[in-house]
Amino acid sequence: MNPDRLTPTIGVFDSGFGGLTVLRALIERLPGAQFAFIGDTARLPYGSKSRRTIARYAAQSARFLVEEQSADFLVIACNTASALALDAIQEAVPQPVLGVIEPGAEAARAASRTGDVLVIATDATVHSHAYAAACGARGLRAIEKACPLLVPLVEEGWTNHPVTAEVIRIYLDELNAEAARRGLNPDTLVLGCTHYPLLRPLIEAAVPAGMKVIDSAEAAAEAAVREFGEKIGCPVLSTPSVERVGDNAPDPVVRCFATDSVEKFERLGSRFLGRPVGAVELVDLGG
Amino acid sequence: MNPDRLTPTIGVFDSGFGGLTVLRALIERLPGAQFAFIGDTARLPYGSKSRRTIARYAAQSARFLVEEQSADFLVIACNTASALALDAIQEAVPQPVLGVIEPGAEAARAASRTGDVLVIATDATVHSHAYAAACGARGLRAIEKACPLLVPLVEEGWTNHPVTAEVIRIYLDELNAEAARRGLNPDTLVLGCTHYPLLRPLIEAAVPAGMKVIDSAEAAAEAAVREFGEKIGCPVLSTPSVERVGDNAPDPVVRCFATDSVEKFERLGSRFLGRPVGAVELVDLGG
Repeated sequence: MNPDRLTPTIGVFDSGFGGLTVLRALIERLPGAQFAFIGDTARLPYGSKSRRTIARYAAQSARFLVEEQSADFLVIACNTASALALDAIQEAVPQPVLGVIEPGAEAARAASRTGDVLVIATDATVHSHAYAAACGARGLRAIEKACPLLVPLVEEGWTNHPVTAEVIRIYLDELNAEAARRGLNPDTLVLGCTHYPLLRPLIEAAVPAGMKVIDSAEAAAEAAVREFGEKIGCPVLSTPSVERVGDNAPDPVVRCFATDSVEKFERLGSRFLGRPVGAVELVDLGG
Repeated sequence: MNPDRLTPTIGVFDSGFGGLTVLRALIERLPGAQFAFIGDTARLPYGSKSRRTIARYAAQSARFLVEEQSADFLVIACNTASALALDAIQEAVPQPVLGVIEPGAEAARAASRTGDVLVIATDATVHSHAYAAACGARGLRAIEKACPLLVPLVEEGWTNHPVTAEVIRIYLDELNAEAARRGLNPDTLVLGCTHYPLLRPLIEAAVPAGMKVIDSAEAAAEAAVREFGEKIGCPVLSTPSVERVGDNAPDPVVRCFATDSVEKFERLGSRFLGRPVGAVELVDLGG
């Protein structure tokens, strides 16, 4: 930890501002920490890019958080970067790095009774099969499906729109048909993209009765508390408390950076963070 | 023109592969030319990025086409880059550069009798108001609307899908309501994004009877023939002929480059080009 600061800094990285759902879950659990968030908005979406490109971009953001924002721990709040670039990020900086895939798979293991799990995510996350591997390592069988229309629907603001409900129904029907073809009996659905928590009400209305919905943003925040908690030296809330953070505690120290589109980040980011994102600072990572 | 080559090379640039609709229209009209196409797929979509970032990216692609592919003329087959970066591209290279905005506005002027025009495009193109300015300079009144869901719907392959028809209906209803509020009587709709020609059947089914639909890709190819035609020294077809190009003439020389996602480019590109795109070469522009 940087010795000239009283509280540690958790650096949070995403390709855009979807990872603000992870930051929100972290703030609710670690109100005494400082946070630096960077969204690589100039180069989003990562979901359609190659492993090599994503690894290069993600390492640049990780170095920014460590070298310029003195981050003590990093959370990769981007499923695509976690799936394709966690190794590259861990090599790029000496600080501990946590992704969202392993916590999501761990939460699925805790929730599932049948051992059969559905995962919805971006193209790149699905093609990496990172969730299938992480689930398989825990004895779960996972079926993954790319849902490339959901991020644009969230960004259009259609989070409670009949078109979005219909798109979700189509995607889940295809996923359940595939599960049936393989003779699986899934009881858990993992939201493998940080945009998807904003669609949680529509998704919960669309899944079969009794199916549990796992939010990888929440799961990652829980894992961060477990992994970094004792090193943090600041209060950890065992039960997340939005009220405490919002009303009674001092405002958390949160600095947000973006590589582009500050206006869009500021306009849409509050929906993801659940509070105003404030002034977003523009940063140039090159490229 | 590069003296060691018998035929000129037309360089075509897009942020992705949507601009292949422009390349297709060019090949149909200029079967004797050579073509080099670059899609900056590592950094797409441009539609949500700032003018500064888009100008930097576009200038890099323009230099690649001129310096490494010996392009004699450039066509910016990307509405967003044409709207935000045409000046920057013209400064970056000495060769003549043609965008898609002015040809689209010119085709609207020729088509419209009421002088009132609708334009649908990406966020960045709309926010630039480049179409409104180009239409205004021709005495037309234009109403522009961002339709950010249409590109992802095309890339999902839902070009003839009820959800896409419904999204188009919603966007056009909003646009027509805005036109009515302003007391306008539009009779022409400009497709201000190179992805939209793939939705033309659904769009034509959704517009009011008698409304003309202008394809900016076709309009840009017509303008390229007018501007570059006499310098090209190779046959120009006054009427585009898919049959001649496809069946009787030798295959045109087309080299395609992408900065990432060659697999996706090759898989989806043929839909836009109307023929197999062949092997796409990966190129690193830095960044």
